[in-house]
Amino acid sequence: MAVPVIKFPTLMMLVRLMGVTVAALVLTWTVHYRGGLALVSDNKDLIFNVHPVLMAIGLVLLNGEGKYPFCALLALVLCVCRCVEWALKMPESELLLVMFESWGFKCCQWHEMNLSCLVIYEFEPAMLAYKTVSGTKSFKKLVHLTLQCLALCLSLIGLWAALKFHNDKGIDNFYSLHSWLGLACLILFAIQWAAGFVTFWYPGGSRNSRATLLPWHVFFGVYIYALAVVTATTGILEKATFLQTNKVISHYSAEALLVNSLGILIIVLGGFVVLATITSLNSKGDIPRNATE
Amino acid sequence: MAVPVIKFPTLMMLVRLMGVTVAALVLTWTVHYRGGLALVSDNKDLIFNVHPVLMAIGLVLLNGEGKYPFCALLALVLCVCRCVEWALKMPESELLLVMFESWGFKCCQWHEMNLSCLVIYEFEPAMLAYKTVSGTKSFKKLVHLTLQCLALCLSLIGLWAALKFHNDKGIDNFYSLHSWLGLACLILFAIQWAAGFVTFWYPGGSRNSRATLLPWHVFFGVYIYALAVVTATTGILEKATFLQTNKVISHYSAEALLVNSLGILIIVLGGFVVLATITSLNSKGDIPRNATE
Repeated sequence: MAVPVIKFPTLMMLVRLMGVTVAALVLTWTVHYRGGLALVSDNKDLIFNVHPVLMAIGLVLLNGEGKYPFCALLALVLCVCRCVEWALKMPESELLLVMFESWGFKCCQWHEMNLSCLVIYEFEPAMLAYKTVSGTKSFKKLVHLTLQCLALCLSLIGLWAALKFHNDKGIDNFYSLHSWLGLACLILFAIQWAAGFVTFWYPGGSRNSRATLLPWHVFFGVYIYALAVVTATTGILEKATFLQTNKVISHYSAEALLVNSLGILIIVLGGFVVLATITSLNSKGDIPRNATE
Repeated sequence: MAVPVIKFPTLMMLVRLMGVTVAALVLTWTVHYRGGLALVSDNKDLIFNVHPVLMAIGLVLLNGEGKYPFCALLALVLCVCRCVEWALKMPESELLLVMFESWGFKCCQWHEMNLSCLVIYEFEPAMLAYKTVSGTKSFKKLVHLTLQCLALCLSLIGLWAALKFHNDKGIDNFYSLHSWLGLACLILFAIQWAAGFVTFWYPGGSRNSRATLLPWHVFFGVYIYALAVVTATTGILEKATFLQTNKVISHYSAEALLVNSLGILIIVLGGFVVLATITSLNSKGDIPRNATE
């Protein structure tokens, strides 16, 4: 099958650039416009805000594969620490400052957005790890399954935040199309991860079963990623519609335009990630041949 | 690139089955639950209802390629006649009855849903025409570009219906993410069609330019289709949210469940259409080699 010809490094640069922008927009929205994030708060809206941030980072940005697994791990730690910090209402987190300094950063002042962007800049979408990570096949596989596991964990915390918000405010659960799509996405993601782990990692299937599963694993990987993009888009639209219907924001306010731009950017990013995946599959050392070995 | 192994006829049977169900659900929703369809009416909601029906038929079901081009043409005529009939408030359309009898159907009584489903059953998603249509390369191309043109026309009428509804009711235009996505989708669809027409049909580009454009044409075809699926899903969610926020329907009402099921089914259908497209591209007589000739 002929695929569009575009240089992989160029694609990855665009994917990273858009990833940073998506992270910046979702954090600007939740922190600047919607008041911030918290896991425990009397202001239930702050609990909800954790949901879009973790879903965007977990299912859209991290779902692919990290170039720098340690940076990804650090990012997870930072996210958790940041959540704890928000929850405990500490304006500055010494733990985070120490960690960043040990990584060579100097953070005299730090803001949610700038710091998180810095971290997410080091991310690569997890589906692309086979191409972007150097090392042995086993190491690449380990990076792939570890990052997908992190993505799953982040999204489960994100789901928990939405459910907590609903339960604390007495709102029904799982009535909207967005929630149905999100649930389907997480269930498929978990099944995909488990099937991949058992077949390609431990205990590992026969050569034949691996060769049979692999094309489906790749197809469902891209499909679940696309489903995550659709779910994110419907979630953004749902929240914006609630805010506009309840007259919290107007139709053409700066926040509405930012939110719409975020949705559009996620769709564009999705296209580039899929294009990069196809490109990486069709170049030398493609996933199918390597991963079955 | 290895692709999932699945028999093309099986896939097409599933795609058709789901296409019929999507059409049945969108018509059940708009006709049974939302009062019907009209291009001119004092009840502006009926004008709006034309929007989801034509968008679903045009951008999701027809966008691909028809196996039976004459059926597709008939379907367009039927749609237009049906719109005219609704607009003129005629309970029965003699023109349509005559047309159907000439095609071997006996229609003593006919309902919006059953008839439309019958017609849409003959559709194939337009992207798959190269595989499903038999005949010369030129004929296949003609079917492809004609059906995509029909899909574009239907969606432009669908857009017009939404704009008319907004203007008649004094609602803002193009403020929501759904409308931004829809506009982007239609613009990209029109550009894709025009570029394809000029390069592959008339006047036709050089062999080199055709070979260069083709992988991009295929990629953007699938991308625009996916964008249409996302747009449809956001539109369904937006309308359901309006209805639920305004207490027209409850969270777990039969209509809400039907609408959510419609959204889920469109996403599943989208996956199968993309899978069928990939399968058709990787089988004998694939699009790339044929279409550049």
